[in-house]
Amino acid sequence: MTDRVVLATHNAHKVCELQRILRAAGLDVELVGLEEFPDAPEVAETESSFAGNALLKARTIADFTGLPAIADDSGLCVDALNGMPGIYSARWSGQHGDDPANLDLVLGQVADVPDSRRSAQFVCAAAWVVPGVSEHVVEGVLEGSLARAPRGGNGFGYDPIFVPAGYALTTAELRPEEKDAISHRGQAFRALAQVMASR
Amino acid sequence: MTDRVVLATHNAHKVCELQRILRAAGLDVELVGLEEFPDAPEVAETESSFAGNALLKARTIADFTGLPAIADDSGLCVDALNGMPGIYSARWSGQHGDDPANLDLVLGQVADVPDSRRSAQFVCAAAWVVPGVSEHVVEGVLEGSLARAPRGGNGFGYDPIFVPAGYALTTAELRPEEKDAISHRGQAFRALAQVMASR
Repeated sequence: MTDRVVLATHNAHKVCELQRILRAAGLDVELVGLEEFPDAPEVAETESSFAGNALLKARTIADFTGLPAIADDSGLCVDALNGMPGIYSARWSGQHGDDPANLDLVLGQVADVPDSRRSAQFVCAAAWVVPGVSEHVVEGVLEGSLARAPRGGNGFGYDPIFVPAGYALTTAELRPEEKDAISHRGQAFRALAQVMASR
Repeated sequence: MTDRVVLATHNAHKVCELQRILRAAGLDVELVGLEEFPDAPEVAETESSFAGNALLKARTIADFTGLPAIADDSGLCVDALNGMPGIYSARWSGQHGDDPANLDLVLGQVADVPDSRRSAQFVCAAAWVVPGVSEHVVEGVLEGSLARAPRGGNGFGYDPIFVPAGYALTTAELRPEEKDAISHRGQAFRALAQVMASR
């Protein structure tokens, strides 16, 4: 029987992407998003790190559902912005989850920053909580730089403006499997899959 | 005869505030803004520090006008945002000089940040360049924290959401002279006035 694991997100893109990554890592779990738990509490991301917020979300949803829960907190860290948007990536424009607004805002903020100082990282913390049993959190980082304008229709979030180091394409121009192979989320969730498989 | 000194800004609020501060410091200069030099080049703030941008602006305008020039670069540094908006304060919303948009954006970004972690600083770097003769730059810092909503009609920029340490009012609720006595800009320009007076 395939284990059901709750993924603490309302983002259908994220459920799809993580299901793909965990399957590719050989882990036979069925990820279910929060659409199946309409009464689940909203978790305010009040911690000051990706790992802290990922654990906070996984813990809250595991407690609520009684099921093993996974959560990630991920974002774009721009060196010229002292590592911001960081943990505020999804709410950078002040509106939670408004990808085009968030992305346009970052481009506007760094409009005067020359190419030599447009380095950035995608960071992902992935947490796994089994209620009353265990808690784990791992991180993945993808180095890159900011494009001047959005390019590509794959992915979500800041993918259209992020160019991985050594690539000419944005992560929104890469095929999903290519992206997963190098991405912050791919790295973090493959590490998490190993932890989950060993338990 | 009163010396004419160009202030490298199109912001009439800033001309007014700095004229007031320099006069109060006993310096008899006539500040003129860039409205009098409609052909002056736009200076992109490409440096990575307040001091760098202030010097860049003062140097460019002194070179263009042949007159002594003053420039400031100032902004709001929010600890929970790793010191941002910082040098991007005036263009934080992506639109240069849109005070209400910038201020609303910061409030939205830190909406989930508890009062215990809402500390911030107002920072000002003030530069003085006499063409072919000398360059000086000084800094002033005002410690404080972020309010939950804008309050007060004085000042400009982020004044309505900044509460100086030890005060209950925002800098937009203080009378102009009260604000100047403690503000980052007051500190920096009084220090600059001393340098200017000694030359």
